[in-house]
Amino acid sequence: MNLIILFESDFLDSQTAILNDRRFDHISTIQKPSPGDFLKVGLLNGETGLAEVTTISDNQISLNVELTNPPPKALPLTLVLALPRPKMLKRVLQTVSSMGVKQLYLINSYRVDKSYWGSPVLEHQINEHLLLGLEQAGDTIMPEVHLRKRFKPFVEDELPEISSEGSSFVAHPYDAAVCPNPSAEHKTLAIGPEGGFIPYEVEKLNQCGFKSIHVGERILRVETAVPVLLSRLFPV
Amino acid sequence: MNLIILFESDFLDSQTAILNDRRFDHISTIQKPSPGDFLKVGLLNGETGLAEVTTISDNQISLNVELTNPPPKALPLTLVLALPRPKMLKRVLQTVSSMGVKQLYLINSYRVDKSYWGSPVLEHQINEHLLLGLEQAGDTIMPEVHLRKRFKPFVEDELPEISSEGSSFVAHPYDAAVCPNPSAEHKTLAIGPEGGFIPYEVEKLNQCGFKSIHVGERILRVETAVPVLLSRLFPV
Repeated sequence: MNLIILFESDFLDSQTAILNDRRFDHISTIQKPSPGDFLKVGLLNGETGLAEVTTISDNQISLNVELTNPPPKALPLTLVLALPRPKMLKRVLQTVSSMGVKQLYLINSYRVDKSYWGSPVLEHQINEHLLLGLEQAGDTIMPEVHLRKRFKPFVEDELPEISSEGSSFVAHPYDAAVCPNPSAEHKTLAIGPEGGFIPYEVEKLNQCGFKSIHVGERILRVETAVPVLLSRLFPV
Repeated sequence: MNLIILFESDFLDSQTAILNDRRFDHISTIQKPSPGDFLKVGLLNGETGLAEVTTISDNQISLNVELTNPPPKALPLTLVLALPRPKMLKRVLQTVSSMGVKQLYLINSYRVDKSYWGSPVLEHQINEHLLLGLEQAGDTIMPEVHLRKRFKPFVEDELPEISSEGSSFVAHPYDAAVCPNPSAEHKTLAIGPEGGFIPYEVEKLNQCGFKSIHVGERILRVETAVPVLLSRLFPV
């Protein structure tokens, strides 16, 4: 937790916030501040800054908050990801959030196991894992996650509009060009499930203007492919 | 398991291999081949190729193996990593192995919890997780892992020799240059623990010729930082 994210509901007035949940536990067991010390904080979907510890007891901490800085820049990317299995989904959500992705479409694909759509992670824990990514990276802007359980209507009816800005790519190791050099231009990137998109799906994405790209002959797990592709497509 | 890795001990003669362990389980439950089908295989630390299924029973499979291709190219990198906590270590070992790192030094640092050095992962499971990474990426060359429990003697006595080829970098967000563009040149890269190397450690690494670099203002988990840095430092 490199940034403590505050919610509007934590505030007693415009400057005073009281924490008594897992953030308090983290602060009191890991950071162990004394009154007068400063902590890095940010308001969810708002600015970041410093909070002076005013009082700290056994079960809560009171902060005097001053928000002065914008959060880190977002990545100009819309990420379209075949729904990973639940355990991997948790980590991918954290990774995506920590790297600054703000638009994430989790979509169906032939090789996505139907059971994944019933996972409790998907039902209840998406925001929790996105928040962990924000806290890690020092960001405050919650990504938007969109669930699309049907591949064809999504690609035919929605994706052309979603991907209309900048270039679009699908990570696919066959008949593919080398991943282009980093650029700040907006992009839409589609990444398939373990085992990849099936040829029909790649064809549909190609028809929608998505160019097939690869990052070498090694086949990477989705949780590795995501940071690799994002690093190759965008400059520092 | 995109590649089934064979050991010398699997072979009855120069071409015939019999599998009856977790590889058999994977093949029989996931790939479900019939006699005459071909599977992608590789010999540990050797070539890759195809194996024709000759017989398959309830508890073993017999393969006729032909090894014809070199494994994917290794990454010309020596990675020096502050020992991560055990759960993260597992994933990092798989990631590092799947991305083609062949020299990994796991070292101590002020912010490495002493208990991590007693982890069962470190004692017994390193090769298991490296193997999973090779199977994922289609590689056969087992990385070499070196454990160094004392920071100062390692950096003073060993690191100058280890890092003598090409450029050396330490990922450190403060007083750092932007990560350089990808190049095929050999590199040595040091990555600190969660919370980073302490100033004394960064200073020692800088004195050893390691240039401080950063990949942006976001603080990434080690398991994300590794693929990000490797992708930025080396071309596809």
